Amino acid sequence: MSSMDLPFIGRLTAGARDAISDLAGVTVGHCTLAEGDVQTGVTVVRPHAGDPYRDRVPAAAVVLNGFGKSVGLVQVEELGVLETPIALTNTFSVAAVAQAQIRSCIAANPECGRGLATVNPLVFECNDGFLNDIQRMVVGEPHYLQALANASAQVEEGAVGAGRGMSCFELKGGIGTASRVAGGHTVGALVLANFGKLHQLRIAGAPVGETLAGRRASDASPEKGSIILLLATDAPLDARQLRRLALRAGAGLARTGSVFGHGSGDIALAFSTAYTVPLEATRPMPALAMLHESLIDKLFEAAADSTEQSILRALWRATPVTGRDGNQREALTDLL
Amino acid sequence: MSSMDLPFIGRLTAGARDAISDLAGVTVGHCTLAEGDVQTGVTVVRPHAGDPYRDRVPAAAVVLNGFGKSVGLVQVEELGVLETPIALTNTFSVAAVAQAQIRSCIAANPECGRGLATVNPLVFECNDGFLNDIQRMVVGEPHYLQALANASAQVEEGAVGAGRGMSCFELKGGIGTASRVAGGHTVGALVLANFGKLHQLRIAGAPVGETLAGRRASDASPEKGSIILLLATDAPLDARQLRRLALRAGAGLARTGSVFGHGSGDIALAFSTAYTVPLEATRPMPALAMLHESLIDKLFEAAADSTEQSILRALWRATPVTGRDGNQREALTDLL
Amino acid sequence: MSSMDLPFIGRLTAGARDAISDLAGVTVGHCTLAEGDVQTGVTVVRPHAGDPYRDRVPAAAVVLNGFGKSVGLVQVEELGVLETPIALTNTFSVAAVAQAQIRSCIAANPECGRGLATVNPLVFECNDGFLNDIQRMVVGEPHYLQALANASAQVEEGAVGAGRGMSCFELKGGIGTASRVAGGHTVGALVLANFGKLHQLRIAGAPVGETLAGRRASDASPEKGSIILLLATDAPLDARQLRRLALRAGAGLARTGSVFGHGSGDIALAFSTAYTVPLEATRPMPALAMLHESLIDKLFEAAADSTEQSILRALWRATPVTGRDGNQREALTDLL
Amino acid sequence: MSSMDLPFIGRLTAGARDAISDLAGVTVGHCTLAEGDVQTGVTVVRPHAGDPYRDRVPAAAVVLNGFGKSVGLVQVEELGVLETPIALTNTFSVAAVAQAQIRSCIAANPECGRGLATVNPLVFECNDGFLNDIQRMVVGEPHYLQALANASAQVEEGAVGAGRGMSCFELKGGIGTASRVAGGHTVGALVLANFGKLHQLRIAGAPVGETLAGRRASDASPEKGSIILLLATDAPLDARQLRRLALRAGAGLARTGSVFGHGSGDIALAFSTAYTVPLEATRPMPALAMLHESLIDKLFEAAADSTEQSILRALWRATPVTGRDGNQREALTDLL
Repeated sequence: MSSMDLPFIGRLTAGARDAISDLAGVTVGHCTLAEGDVQTGVTVVRPHAGDPYRDRVPAAAVVLNGFGKSVGLVQVEELGVLETPIALTNTFSVAAVAQAQIRSCIAANPECGRGLATVNPLVFECNDGFLNDIQRMVVGEPHYLQALANASAQVEEGAVGAGRGMSCFELKGGIGTASRVAGGHTVGALVLANFGKLHQLRIAGAPVGETLAGRRASDASPEKGSIILLLATDAPLDARQLRRLALRAGAGLARTGSVFGHGSGDIALAFSTAYTVPLEATRPMPALAMLHESLIDKLFEAAADSTEQSILRALWRATPVTGRDGNQREALTDLL
Repeated sequence: MSSMDLPFIGRLTAGARDAISDLAGVTVGHCTLAEGDVQTGVTVVRPHAGDPYRDRVPAAAVVLNGFGKSVGLVQVEELGVLETPIALTNTFSVAAVAQAQIRSCIAANPECGRGLATVNPLVFECNDGFLNDIQRMVVGEPHYLQALANASAQVEEGAVGAGRGMSCFELKGGIGTASRVAGGHTVGALVLANFGKLHQLRIAGAPVGETLAGRRASDASPEKGSIILLLATDAPLDARQLRRLALRAGAGLARTGSVFGHGSGDIALAFSTAYTVPLEATRPMPALAMLHESLIDKLFEAAADSTEQSILRALWRATPVTGRDGNQREALTDLL
Repeated sequence: MSSMDLPFIGRLTAGARDAISDLAGVTVGHCTLAEGDVQTGVTVVRPHAGDPYRDRVPAAAVVLNGFGKSVGLVQVEELGVLETPIALTNTFSVAAVAQAQIRSCIAANPECGRGLATVNPLVFECNDGFLNDIQRMVVGEPHYLQALANASAQVEEGAVGAGRGMSCFELKGGIGTASRVAGGHTVGALVLANFGKLHQLRIAGAPVGETLAGRRASDASPEKGSIILLLATDAPLDARQLRRLALRAGAGLARTGSVFGHGSGDIALAFSTAYTVPLEATRPMPALAMLHESLIDKLFEAAADSTEQSILRALWRATPVTGRDGNQREALTDLL
Repeated sequence: MSSMDLPFIGRLTAGARDAISDLAGVTVGHCTLAEGDVQTGVTVVRPHAGDPYRDRVPAAAVVLNGFGKSVGLVQVEELGVLETPIALTNTFSVAAVAQAQIRSCIAANPECGRGLATVNPLVFECNDGFLNDIQRMVVGEPHYLQALANASAQVEEGAVGAGRGMSCFELKGGIGTASRVAGGHTVGALVLANFGKLHQLRIAGAPVGETLAGRRASDASPEKGSIILLLATDAPLDARQLRRLALRAGAGLARTGSVFGHGSGDIALAFSTAYTVPLEATRPMPALAMLHESLIDKLFEAAADSTEQSILRALWRATPVTGRDGNQREALTDLL
């Protein structure tokens, strides 16, 4: 049992749920696989209740460190929208989940697979190979569909979904979420946290990791983690502005001790729930005013704070897991 | 039968094979699926005879138009190397081929799937949905392995491998290759050509497409093609220089009439055969002098010329194909 | 006197002036310095009749080859707007013109220099050192102001303004402009053309440069030119879309024979006249619908065609110039 | 007098000087203008004792937030080298210093201004308009030359050179430097710190700014600062690797409380002292092995730590300054 309460990060107010689902319409679903050497899963973030293939969601990504195998970013960069739910899974299951996204889109929109039409799957990954026998590649289409079906505004955190097998600061990591309200808008974050060496961990600025690392044998292996940082906001931002916002997730990440390690795939993606872009040119394009650039600073603060908070939440909510070859990760709260 | 000979592009000399395999060690293999509605395949470019997972190949990519679903570019951009053979296939088979690359790497290098080690699959795609029933997703691991096994310095062109179902300027497209020698170095190109409207086609500058388009009913549908442009060189270039080289494939592409259409995934990747980067830090890094920047212009010319030539070769070598729902593509040479 | 008429590029229709000033409000002014060894100048493109510091113009740039010393692009990339007129001059006069833009803004908007407020000068350059004694750095604030005062919808072309000392394909180059109407919108181009070796020149696809180069002693020196490619459109595009448009100037450039040479600073910038972004957050942001992405292809064609046409216009309108140390550039039309 | 000692950041060891000049050959010089309303200056970082125009220095930059007017980055990005000393000054003096760099290069290398040869000035800026009457634009060529002449391995910090008029966290900011030794290599940092609101300040993780901000009337104005982050290393890194290193300065910056504010031009540049690239192709290119990528993590840690340390040093070394219109900035150490 921890003697340290989860600190609240920053000066801003959290949303009602202190979760990415404080953005109206945003839901999160998990499918968790947890049996013996298999400790993995899929997490899905749905940007709205409809089909993003028909009603596309403005989005942009920033690659802080590109040691990663995510798919879909080339097209997000070019077109500034996402057209599927966002999927998170382990490194070697990206292809299976991408395939599931394509099939799912075809089923719902026959034209997306007909002839020359197409869909851009969007799947992020971290490597859970320490706890999960990643070579078994057990994740498949049903798990993606299950995660999708489970999507809800009640976001489960910790060792669930794609977070099941993830490690963070050599402790149990996984899924965390938070939100902040700023300047009349909300920014929500959700992370898949799988990065960091124990000694690096800073909690609300305090060098907790150094203390903890002093108590146990050092693990000299290089970091080979990753973190996926998702941001949602109801501010009307275009793709250029969303890219700016996404970068600020990196500030929140750095405050927890990360230096965006060489072996870590650190990727941030931000999307807006303020409007959608229609698939067909025959439907009207949204005619709304974007946020004036000079008002974006508050959102940057919210992005950094909700990211830092989400990482701490992933640590605080995580339960210990024993997985592949008996490898174990403790929960931070058992050490504090 | 064509009355027009395939023009030779540019002032430079071609290599012995006028193919990407003029670069020592570079081989190309195809696996072609051609039965009724299934007209597709896999093409593999091996950068050297060894395993690029162990001996990584310096590389860089440029996204001319990112309406594409290729995988692996995030890490190539970050690390400046490729660590698998380069695979080409259709849009909806990217995941299957990526999975095959992972399994193939694990089989050859058990550590690449063990624990936290990992491999970055590199798969490019174009959408062959006009001739191929792309929804059937028939491509699998065996086809990737077959293409790999078929790799040879004799490069088959036209409606083969990943090029089987591709269309180019509303004609039959597919695989084309060429090379040029410049300043003591060779640049080889290989394209998967699946782009363009007929009226745009320029052959060595001549507006042949306009003439041909005048003769048949116009197809007013927007372009939804793509082109993958691969360049290899024996010049010692680092990743930054290779990115510069890759961009010049775009100059060759533009000369054939492309304006990098909105719906086209136009991606260029260049790699060098002059050296490799070892997987392990315990092996020595290459200590060779890179090319002085002021000598790179000749390579730029070679890149543009070999790309333009490769596109023409894809058209000239292509044979007519009838595929999905009886859709047909004629060979350019039957129209000239 | 030329026996070859200036070809009309492409299938689209030109605007009324076949100039960048076909975009309502866009004007161009020159200040030309032509005395002996000094053959240089300043050209200004005003995006609208007002002050872009107060009413900012959506814009984005693409660096095709970054061997260039332009200033202002970092902020254009970040904020997606330009806030001064666009200035063109020679390489060593960039600083003087940037300074003039700052002073001019301060004069018109006292707050832009007060305290912490600031303005982002935007100056592009090519190196006219062959004809101009560039070391003399004679360009100053008065020349910028003169060019600004001269701005008009009647665009003078050829060896004027910043184009005075520029060379193109080893011939006299300089300023060229053109426009195309496509899909209900207009795209206008203006180039400062100072690139290319004679043998590379292609006129509407025809290898005219090869023929001309055969007739005179070859100049084996590497290209050290540059080209600045400006695009304006009345289509409502955001910064991401404008970046896509700007890249297509590169397709038009490639068609004239360029391979984006190593020593050439090839930079394209596109802006929209459809709306402006207010300096102050207290004024309303524009609430208009952007162009649906699927309708952008026509604009890409217009961008490439108007760029190619502008380069030819720069060549056709240029008159012979004798400058520094008696160096001479002939007019293309005297050779045809 | 401060009751708080300057904390030492991180686990690594500092170099002998704990300064960027721990890299052999790197020197720093200031020219300070401090009279009444004029509180500004120039700082120069020389990467080696020779002329970088002849012996170019591998370098790469990352724009964390591009609200900035630095010049020279387009070419650094393209060519991966710097060819002048690095100059720092105020926003409205960039042009004057760039001009001085050009003249200085011409003087030392007549061919850099002759005919078509050219040089790429590299000048970074922050806006010191709070303390300095920036509109007066008093900085000129003599000040650049003076800073150059003053260059020494003894780095003066605080309110000197370009740092004279800079503010940081609403306190007196300016120049700070530090270094860290890691994995057999040294990373040195030098910052021009002019960013942040007081409440954001974190010292070694502790929310000191919140406490201090509670004691005085809040300044609700948005941040309009900037920070320039320079890194030098003796590790043999190519431009791609240097870009990776430069990004990690952002991690150190974030730890001090920055979220890369909208109005802040936050730019990092890293260079290597391990080798140079000759101007002329006739001289041999360096043939040395780059650092194996897997060994770069230690350098990332060193980059983040030395950056954080440098920012704290800028605060600790700063003395109070009264400038334009009697505006004042206190020293942090007078408040602790």
